[in-house]
Amino acid sequence: MKIGIVGLGLIGGSLAIDLRSQNHDLLGVSRQEATCKVALEKGIVDLASTDLSILKAAEIIFICTPMDKIAPIVEKLIPYLDNDTIVTDVGSVKQPIVEACSKLWDNFIGGHPMAGTAQQGINAAQSNLFQGAAYVFTPPDKSTGRTSPALRGRGQPLANLDKLKQLAVSLGAIPYICSPEVHDRAVAWISHLPVMVSAGLVAACLGETDTDVLELAQNLASSGFRDTSRVGGGNPELGTMMAQYNQDSLLRSLYGYRDRLEHIIELIETKNWDNLQQLLTENHQARPKFLN
Amino acid sequence: MKIGIVGLGLIGGSLAIDLRSQNHDLLGVSRQEATCKVALEKGIVDLASTDLSILKAAEIIFICTPMDKIAPIVEKLIPYLDNDTIVTDVGSVKQPIVEACSKLWDNFIGGHPMAGTAQQGINAAQSNLFQGAAYVFTPPDKSTGRTSPALRGRGQPLANLDKLKQLAVSLGAIPYICSPEVHDRAVAWISHLPVMVSAGLVAACLGETDTDVLELAQNLASSGFRDTSRVGGGNPELGTMMAQYNQDSLLRSLYGYRDRLEHIIELIETKNWDNLQQLLTENHQARPKFLN
Repeated sequence: MKIGIVGLGLIGGSLAIDLRSQNHDLLGVSRQEATCKVALEKGIVDLASTDLSILKAAEIIFICTPMDKIAPIVEKLIPYLDNDTIVTDVGSVKQPIVEACSKLWDNFIGGHPMAGTAQQGINAAQSNLFQGAAYVFTPPDKSTGRTSPALRGRGQPLANLDKLKQLAVSLGAIPYICSPEVHDRAVAWISHLPVMVSAGLVAACLGETDTDVLELAQNLASSGFRDTSRVGGGNPELGTMMAQYNQDSLLRSLYGYRDRLEHIIELIETKNWDNLQQLLTENHQARPKFLN
Repeated sequence: MKIGIVGLGLIGGSLAIDLRSQNHDLLGVSRQEATCKVALEKGIVDLASTDLSILKAAEIIFICTPMDKIAPIVEKLIPYLDNDTIVTDVGSVKQPIVEACSKLWDNFIGGHPMAGTAQQGINAAQSNLFQGAAYVFTPPDKSTGRTSPALRGRGQPLANLDKLKQLAVSLGAIPYICSPEVHDRAVAWISHLPVMVSAGLVAACLGETDTDVLELAQNLASSGFRDTSRVGGGNPELGTMMAQYNQDSLLRSLYGYRDRLEHIIELIETKNWDNLQQLLTENHQARPKFLN
């Protein structure tokens, strides 16, 4: 199969490496000439260009750019697409992307492979990045009427979805199918809320005005602080973009979190140790359900 | 030197192993006959008993029991102590313990070796547990008048403190000296607040009423959620006891945290992405100061 990749960074490059190893023809597009050169030299793609027109031959196109570039690229791609070309993306928020892109292209299906490393760029691309990772697909949500009448008429996107699922399985990933909204709410809980909760922890510690206390805290901090503060001390651009794109679902989770925090504070203020221990016991029992 | 240990669990047992390997005489006391037997069989101590009277010969006594047992044990120990015997503890909160115990015994100095594993009990005791760990000592706080006049008159506890510091260094630990209050505020920030912040995260996720979203969240959760939720899903008894013993300092940290969280929510509600990114950038830059 001829497969196009727009954006040859960590995710796009890693997708290309695995798919090419399965004997698909990989057509890569990057804004940067230098990236195209590296991708060809490393044998990551068969053909590379800064020009979207090379994707004319592609049957499936993965858009692996930052989120704000996805819909503009779909728009620019249209002159080069066959009616049947499947277009998908790898953005970590789905509702705004699926809404914008499914209006532009009937055969658009949102995707989110949940893999990554701390590195970025074509040189970080690696084989087997998606092995064992979740890969969520969010076909346009029929219930909200966002799927175009034409698409529904042709019985799409089920056949398209099957093709994408098969590719995900071939990467060793575990495919999940849900609406964009369910995806965005779920990742708000387990990915975006933790960033803000953890960011609040670091910011609160930095607010300590007693320098003896702050200095000792910095000296004593160990694994508990390290783990709880990790995602809140991570990439600031990424954290901001998550909040920007998933604002509604993130706020929904933050309000739920604020309520629980208020409850915990109240239990401690009123010395309700029995109920505090019960809450911690429920957490202790429930947490393994979130860990595979 | 003859060193007594009351409570032969992970911390007490591990202290005994390292100190005995330095040729000190180790006298161990446990409530349980079976623990005494194991401690002797494994060569963790030289002498073991369920009876505090064996500690008559000890020059320094470490009380390594749960926090609620420390002051009662100091009280029971008094008949067996020489005037010069140094008594210390290993509890993770210092102000209430130092306040109670320094009233009972002039030569009491609070201690907190910040080491541990997920295991408990004599069978979890190991050598070199304290290697590289912080070991905080909190002599009775003169500024608050809690040191007895007799103690001040004899120029104590500086000589005692030196002896304890030397022992800590001999374990490979890094000694810190501060007031009980500064200790408790510092550990509230880096140890007890993270537990509550993290507990709120798990509890909030469990409050999701849309079962599709909750189920997907549980399937998609990966390293970010795992790390941020770890200490909030830990030992419920320990979490409750931290809150109980360090209530004031923990609430002080929780109020600071609540303010920061409210600020983050407001930035997201008002789409103030520049200031959100600035806050995340400050976190990103400051977090390494908490990690050694």
